Amino acid sequence: MANKRKKVSVIGGGFTGATTAFLLGQKELSDVVLVDIPQMENPTKGKALDMLEASPIQGFDASITGTSNYEDTANSDIVVITAGIARKPGMSRDDLVSTNAGIMKSVTKEIVKNSPDCTIIVLTNPVDAMTYTVYKESGFPKHRVIGQSGVLDTARFRTFVAQELNLSVKDITGFVLGGHGDDMVPLVRYSYAGGIPLETLIPKERLDAIVERTRKGGGEIVNLLGNGSAYYAPAASLVEMVEAILKDQRRVLPTIAFLEGEYGFDGIYLGVPTILGGNGIEKIIELDLTEEEKAALQQSADSVKQVMKVLS
Amino acid sequence: MANKRKKVSVIGGGFTGATTAFLLGQKELSDVVLVDIPQMENPTKGKALDMLEASPIQGFDASITGTSNYEDTANSDIVVITAGIARKPGMSRDDLVSTNAGIMKSVTKEIVKNSPDCTIIVLTNPVDAMTYTVYKESGFPKHRVIGQSGVLDTARFRTFVAQELNLSVKDITGFVLGGHGDDMVPLVRYSYAGGIPLETLIPKERLDAIVERTRKGGGEIVNLLGNGSAYYAPAASLVEMVEAILKDQRRVLPTIAFLEGEYGFDGIYLGVPTILGGNGIEKIIELDLTEEEKAALQQSADSVKQVMKVLS
Amino acid sequence: MANKRKKVSVIGGGFTGATTAFLLGQKELSDVVLVDIPQMENPTKGKALDMLEASPIQGFDASITGTSNYEDTANSDIVVITAGIARKPGMSRDDLVSTNAGIMKSVTKEIVKNSPDCTIIVLTNPVDAMTYTVYKESGFPKHRVIGQSGVLDTARFRTFVAQELNLSVKDITGFVLGGHGDDMVPLVRYSYAGGIPLETLIPKERLDAIVERTRKGGGEIVNLLGNGSAYYAPAASLVEMVEAILKDQRRVLPTIAFLEGEYGFDGIYLGVPTILGGNGIEKIIELDLTEEEKAALQQSADSVKQVMKVLS
Amino acid sequence: MANKRKKVSVIGGGFTGATTAFLLGQKELSDVVLVDIPQMENPTKGKALDMLEASPIQGFDASITGTSNYEDTANSDIVVITAGIARKPGMSRDDLVSTNAGIMKSVTKEIVKNSPDCTIIVLTNPVDAMTYTVYKESGFPKHRVIGQSGVLDTARFRTFVAQELNLSVKDITGFVLGGHGDDMVPLVRYSYAGGIPLETLIPKERLDAIVERTRKGGGEIVNLLGNGSAYYAPAASLVEMVEAILKDQRRVLPTIAFLEGEYGFDGIYLGVPTILGGNGIEKIIELDLTEEEKAALQQSADSVKQVMKVLS
Repeated sequence: MANKRKKVSVIGGGFTGATTAFLLGQKELSDVVLVDIPQMENPTKGKALDMLEASPIQGFDASITGTSNYEDTANSDIVVITAGIARKPGMSRDDLVSTNAGIMKSVTKEIVKNSPDCTIIVLTNPVDAMTYTVYKESGFPKHRVIGQSGVLDTARFRTFVAQELNLSVKDITGFVLGGHGDDMVPLVRYSYAGGIPLETLIPKERLDAIVERTRKGGGEIVNLLGNGSAYYAPAASLVEMVEAILKDQRRVLPTIAFLEGEYGFDGIYLGVPTILGGNGIEKIIELDLTEEEKAALQQSADSVKQVMKVLS
Repeated sequence: MANKRKKVSVIGGGFTGATTAFLLGQKELSDVVLVDIPQMENPTKGKALDMLEASPIQGFDASITGTSNYEDTANSDIVVITAGIARKPGMSRDDLVSTNAGIMKSVTKEIVKNSPDCTIIVLTNPVDAMTYTVYKESGFPKHRVIGQSGVLDTARFRTFVAQELNLSVKDITGFVLGGHGDDMVPLVRYSYAGGIPLETLIPKERLDAIVERTRKGGGEIVNLLGNGSAYYAPAASLVEMVEAILKDQRRVLPTIAFLEGEYGFDGIYLGVPTILGGNGIEKIIELDLTEEEKAALQQSADSVKQVMKVLS
Repeated sequence: MANKRKKVSVIGGGFTGATTAFLLGQKELSDVVLVDIPQMENPTKGKALDMLEASPIQGFDASITGTSNYEDTANSDIVVITAGIARKPGMSRDDLVSTNAGIMKSVTKEIVKNSPDCTIIVLTNPVDAMTYTVYKESGFPKHRVIGQSGVLDTARFRTFVAQELNLSVKDITGFVLGGHGDDMVPLVRYSYAGGIPLETLIPKERLDAIVERTRKGGGEIVNLLGNGSAYYAPAASLVEMVEAILKDQRRVLPTIAFLEGEYGFDGIYLGVPTILGGNGIEKIIELDLTEEEKAALQQSADSVKQVMKVLS
Repeated sequence: MANKRKKVSVIGGGFTGATTAFLLGQKELSDVVLVDIPQMENPTKGKALDMLEASPIQGFDASITGTSNYEDTANSDIVVITAGIARKPGMSRDDLVSTNAGIMKSVTKEIVKNSPDCTIIVLTNPVDAMTYTVYKESGFPKHRVIGQSGVLDTARFRTFVAQELNLSVKDITGFVLGGHGDDMVPLVRYSYAGGIPLETLIPKERLDAIVERTRKGGGEIVNLLGNGSAYYAPAASLVEMVEAILKDQRRVLPTIAFLEGEYGFDGIYLGVPTILGGNGIEKIIELDLTEEEKAALQQSADSVKQVMKVLS
């Protein structure tokens, strides 16, 4: 019964995919296969080799390889999807739907063929709808198809709060429900500094501004970069989810999960608090919501459904 | 006597500079200021903010900021220079000299003005000549102006050997003297797997091929990427040097050091084994070389002098 | 302006002191001097050497030395006091007062003489009174004399909650005020799993049992060990506080702080939420308490005063 | 295909076993079961609980439990044996043989029954003979029964060399063959600082003194402690071996391996350089030895055989 390394494949060799691969290797969580389309095979191989050449210095043992051949992803424990066209300045997330849904379908076919037992984590935007597309195409059970948005959204929120209060990011927590970006439903009453509710530490108008900045957090980076979108924090978010699953940590993390009755919704993917462990989503945690929060979540769900219409 | 964080400024907000900033933050080695020209101020701020937003997830406390204003670098403990035009496919390193030397001079003026007590580490190519340029412009003592090349070159060598022998990178060591790239003088007799000389483990022709691949290691990545050059391993190399200095580790690392008589050279920067500690280069280690190695080092020094002629 | 390693001295070479020294070294936070009485000099040197011999394997650079000579602690940045007689099964903390107060005084004299600018962290029980004793003897400003109890108490609480809910410890937070052990005032309403208030996740009687087990947490270990008391978690607690100060992290951590009006108390050391940074205690955070909580805190303060009477 | 945590059982809840458990947990390498005899069940539970209570602070997710019931070790991936009576000041290792061999046999029976597919790592002294005893009793293939001594011996050697040269331990390597302690065969010619042979850096008499100190390294700690023996560095050594196997790292590490013809020996366990990976010992590396080294290794083997006679 030999001990074997875990294997994670990352679909999409752009900045987010590459950074995800590097962070996975750094933590020695798994071997990593970075996949892109044939035209990008050489750059992808180049990035993977560059990362590998950092491994003796950073002191990690992980195979990191680039490929355009999905057979190299065979028997992955987890597959992360970052492929898709990127959001550009001014582009709405809805504009991305058709193109990215097509990419999701073709990518998912390959994933399922080569790693029928894997767990899939989707980052591609609009992430709720893209995760649904992957779910349907894969035929996988719902606990093995998960979308990322809440880890990133709360990380941005925590960063802004830490700056506001001049405190360590380690002691700030945040909480969101619903979709990514504008549809985000931040539960400020469940957000703390050292356990102390933020509402008692930060004036309401400042806290509102932080929430608003968080909602627009992706766009803020896009606008600053001028060309491209955020990748450090999105990659770190994916890696946190991968780690929780590979190590069966049973983390409480907000993820895009398939709802079948929870929170009153059925048949859609939406951001909710979940327990993430060895089986993927171990459980969806249901909270009592205020009327205001319920309304906001409904609106978020409506947005997701709007996007899903484009798909059908 | 308050405890204050260390401060490292990274000049050049391209991929190498940005990755260096992120790796420094990740290790909580220091606060980091990432500097680029005014036209790149927004992208640089965007990258810094994206990194910062990864900090709550990765669990590190470090301020990472982007700027085009050198006053923000005031009182840095270490300044890393990655600025300069990048090597493009087919471009010789010599073509870079004039442009990059000009950049070095203007950058150094700002560094000296704002952080008169810092240690400077130079990555910009051709690194031997660029380090010399910074040394001269700075007026700093030689132990505080250091170039990077050997940490990267040996990392590549170690990677290739680990692949050849199918062994952990942790147990492979390498050793180089002289300049970067084609001028590299690898001392294979000082390179080991688990302490066992590589010459007894790898057939000569394979070892020669690995050495040759190492020499061309930068170009291999450039050719694969098609557009741009390596940045993960170069950034990791810089961070290893920064860490050795900030933590006064007295590491034995190959660096580009100013020679005044060592190895028979005088007044040039060349890659040699050094002890890196709290004062920067604590000592240059002199080795007995074979006639062949001496000749190769002389050739490497000649190349450096050729480049330096362009500067005068 | 050479970069120098930080220096931490740990007074008391027993299991807690030794484990603290090891954890500090592991993190490369500082060089460490482990101090015990002359009769224990050799065992202390033995432990320090054993730790040092683990450093090449664990990959850290830190000098760890054992001594009985306080001159070896000169110019420490932080001094941690773990010295004192240990709590034995059945022994009340009050029994320890006189003996340990005498030890505090003699130890503090030496600390002040050799490291007049250091910050002192006290672990010795009864910790509120012992921290006061050190404060008075040292003549240091109050922000540089701090006691540990809340980091440990909340860690125990978090452990028990994680077990109860079968969740990652990373996502559980806890909150205590007041004294250590029986006098602890846990604020369950400020304790969460993934941001969700524990009161909504755990039935009241189970939560009460967890609080009670936390109060008796030290005794539980003492009873199991039969001979000696806990040292892993206490050492980890101290190291978290040291790290927050050395790296100026501005963590929100519960510490034993000197109150001058806060929470309605004056002139006593009591456990309260604080911001811990480069200056030691940067700020005491005041919370609105319920009447019940106020009464419990008053009782806790009364206990501390009872102990302090023994001292005068 | 759920992702499950690895499981490591540590037999012997003394200081070495406990420290091993803690270091395994800290690295999140596996869940850990710490086993001792029924009379020591409570102290073992107490240590495990104390470690667990450090986990929220140090930030690791690992179940650490104490027990005297081997059924709790079921399906371990690796079992580490630290059980046995300890070496006391003045006691020769040979005195330990009979007692510890009996312990090995009974422990091995339980291990095999509960974890028939595990890999076993033995620390108990005299380690060569004890590993042989476990091997015979277990009926396991030789690659899954391994003894520890060389990782520890080289760590001590590296520590002393780092002190002698005032260099980082990270850049010092050492190399030993043969038995533990007095029977150690250090290959100084394969030992380096930054890749530079130590023989060129340290005068022969100093190097001889370091070798001699290394041979007596265990005794040095025993004598200093007065009561008990080293446990930090031995535990770190075990953890390095466990990590290499669990993560299939293919490390080049000196281990006690069963020889069948290698180095001219047959049917004994002896310290040799090996590749440690997912299958345990992946390969024994054979080196050309000088006549002097061959003689020393022969003497070391003779000592092992002497001890083995006691066993038959």
